[in-house]
Amino acid sequence: MELQAKINFVVEIDRLKGVLRQTLNYHEARPENSAEHSWHLAMAVMQLHSYANQPVDVFRCVRMALIHDLVEIDAGDTFIYDHSADKFERENQAADRIFGLLPKSDSNELKSLWLEFEANESAESKFVRALDRFLPLYSNILSRGYSWKNHKIRSHQIMAKNKPIISDGSSKLWEMIEGFLRSTIPNFDSNPWLPY
Amino acid sequence: MELQAKINFVVEIDRLKGVLRQTLNYHEARPENSAEHSWHLAMAVMQLHSYANQPVDVFRCVRMALIHDLVEIDAGDTFIYDHSADKFERENQAADRIFGLLPKSDSNELKSLWLEFEANESAESKFVRALDRFLPLYSNILSRGYSWKNHKIRSHQIMAKNKPIISDGSSKLWEMIEGFLRSTIPNFDSNPWLPY
Repeated sequence: MELQAKINFVVEIDRLKGVLRQTLNYHEARPENSAEHSWHLAMAVMQLHSYANQPVDVFRCVRMALIHDLVEIDAGDTFIYDHSADKFERENQAADRIFGLLPKSDSNELKSLWLEFEANESAESKFVRALDRFLPLYSNILSRGYSWKNHKIRSHQIMAKNKPIISDGSSKLWEMIEGFLRSTIPNFDSNPWLPY
Repeated sequence: MELQAKINFVVEIDRLKGVLRQTLNYHEARPENSAEHSWHLAMAVMQLHSYANQPVDVFRCVRMALIHDLVEIDAGDTFIYDHSADKFERENQAADRIFGLLPKSDSNELKSLWLEFEANESAESKFVRALDRFLPLYSNILSRGYSWKNHKIRSHQIMAKNKPIISDGSSKLWEMIEGFLRSTIPNFDSNPWLPY
């Protein structure tokens, strides 16, 4: 029955609250989970969409933000500086199982929204992805490099992983962030790996 | 500067991840926080809107779900069976402070969306509120009455607090829930307070 299938999906996705990320919440010393992160990302989309490089369909961005990490229920969170070869394959299988709990037309809609996010070609996916990079970067600024320290991430890696993605979605946002990195972190460029 | 004000808001609302509710997550034995709950509510809205009693603007419902608990950053979570006289006043002050971090037009928009949710008169607010009752009720079913036991909530209170609100937003959803309560919990009506 359709209503029961949708409720089963709502019950299943509650598991995202148990997927922990490498990032700390801004105001507590605990790792955030992917469900509260997805809420935060959707909120950031709602507030910052006027700074996207291209005009975006805001509701599409919000929906994308809300579902973008659901695959982590099966595939786990992947730290952005990791390069695991089979990441897409594992996440794609997860998408099929989790979205597949829904009636066919809803399932197809969410799967294609997730694939659009992964492809990073549409205006909406570029903007959501920019904010998805911005939020943990800002957490690292507030925590004096918590996950950067944990994983010995160097300044040039921070730039390489964040600048292209963030400036591709919102050059105005990147401009502010780069200014912030350079004014907050002494000798940002010259430091070997951890700038504090 | 407008962008800086919006970022300050995004940073401030991260505090919602630290507001704990009386409800357990479905699949872990820990209280959920209001940020992950807001994500879950927005996801439920996206999947279940076709069961609303009246046609709803889905994006408006999703936005309402995302912001409906932000006032708890200052005012705390209020358990639904509590009746604190100054609840609205405290939450209204919180709304002014938190939404007030944004530029004026955004601030006004979010404040009126929150007031619409509180007033519980529009089709959108009735539907979002129905799901906001449904999610913790379902948690109690899964946890064999965790928060009902903690607060010695009786069956007639469960019906009185949930049936009018949920059936006002979605009579089809309430029908399924009531069937589920009666089939899952032995002698639901006759038990003194906790049915297990």
